[in-house]
Amino acid sequence: MRAREIAQEYPVIELDAYAVDAVRLLAQHRLRGIVVTDVVGRPHAVLSDSQVLRFLVPAYTVNEPTLARVYGEKYAEVGTGLFGCTVRQLLPEQTIEVPVADSDATVVELAALMARLHSPLVAVVEGEYLQGVVTTTHLIELILPAS
Amino acid sequence: MRAREIAQEYPVIELDAYAVDAVRLLAQHRLRGIVVTDVVGRPHAVLSDSQVLRFLVPAYTVNEPTLARVYGEKYAEVGTGLFGCTVRQLLPEQTIEVPVADSDATVVELAALMARLHSPLVAVVEGEYLQGVVTTTHLIELILPAS
Repeated sequence: MRAREIAQEYPVIELDAYAVDAVRLLAQHRLRGIVVTDVVGRPHAVLSDSQVLRFLVPAYTVNEPTLARVYGEKYAEVGTGLFGCTVRQLLPEQTIEVPVADSDATVVELAALMARLHSPLVAVVEGEYLQGVVTTTHLIELILPAS
Repeated sequence: MRAREIAQEYPVIELDAYAVDAVRLLAQHRLRGIVVTDVVGRPHAVLSDSQVLRFLVPAYTVNEPTLARVYGEKYAEVGTGLFGCTVRQLLPEQTIEVPVADSDATVVELAALMARLHSPLVAVVEGEYLQGVVTTTHLIELILPAS
């Protein structure tokens, strides 16, 4: 079984799209993450819902649980930092390995890549262009021993 | 809005249950992770689907992409290492912080906890006992700016 046979269609978002649109896509489709592409459709990154969450609450609350509690009173402000930002600004500053696999990658290669990068999904490419996505959930279903 | 108002019922598994049953629960319900409890129902850990994936393929394939490709031919063996294992054996050896929040935690506290621990879910407890679960997806829907 090869990546091209199991890759599924999946929403993507461009690097310079509005961040709030990426978050809405995640929420509407209840996605674990979304593939971020450049203008010609080449995968540039995977934006996971954990990364989004980190952006929706003030940075100091993430590292300091006590401050997170205090902040509770200002709930109305949460998430508003997102407006005007682009997807590019949600991504980590340092370049990290993008979870991309060739369309002839095996199931084991996909699983190993996901496990190594702690990514909820892998972008499957043919040449440089996105063909579809394989998620952790899908892969576990495929690998699960039959009995 | 407090954790007790948004926590949802969610499958749990006991520490000494068979690992393969945990993986089946994840796959059947398409879960991101599952709360692992001790015999009296206190949350002990969250087993994420990434951790499961790491266990379904041989360790050397995770760190060495080239070996993952070679292994593709022995696909039939993948996942069989799971039989006879308990959930306890799937968990990391070192004690890590468990994503548990009190039932009066705020949405910001839950989000900050998830972001800090990179956890796909938080176990909500009343006293020591599990009341329900809040997932990253659910939290993003709640936080998402309205317009």
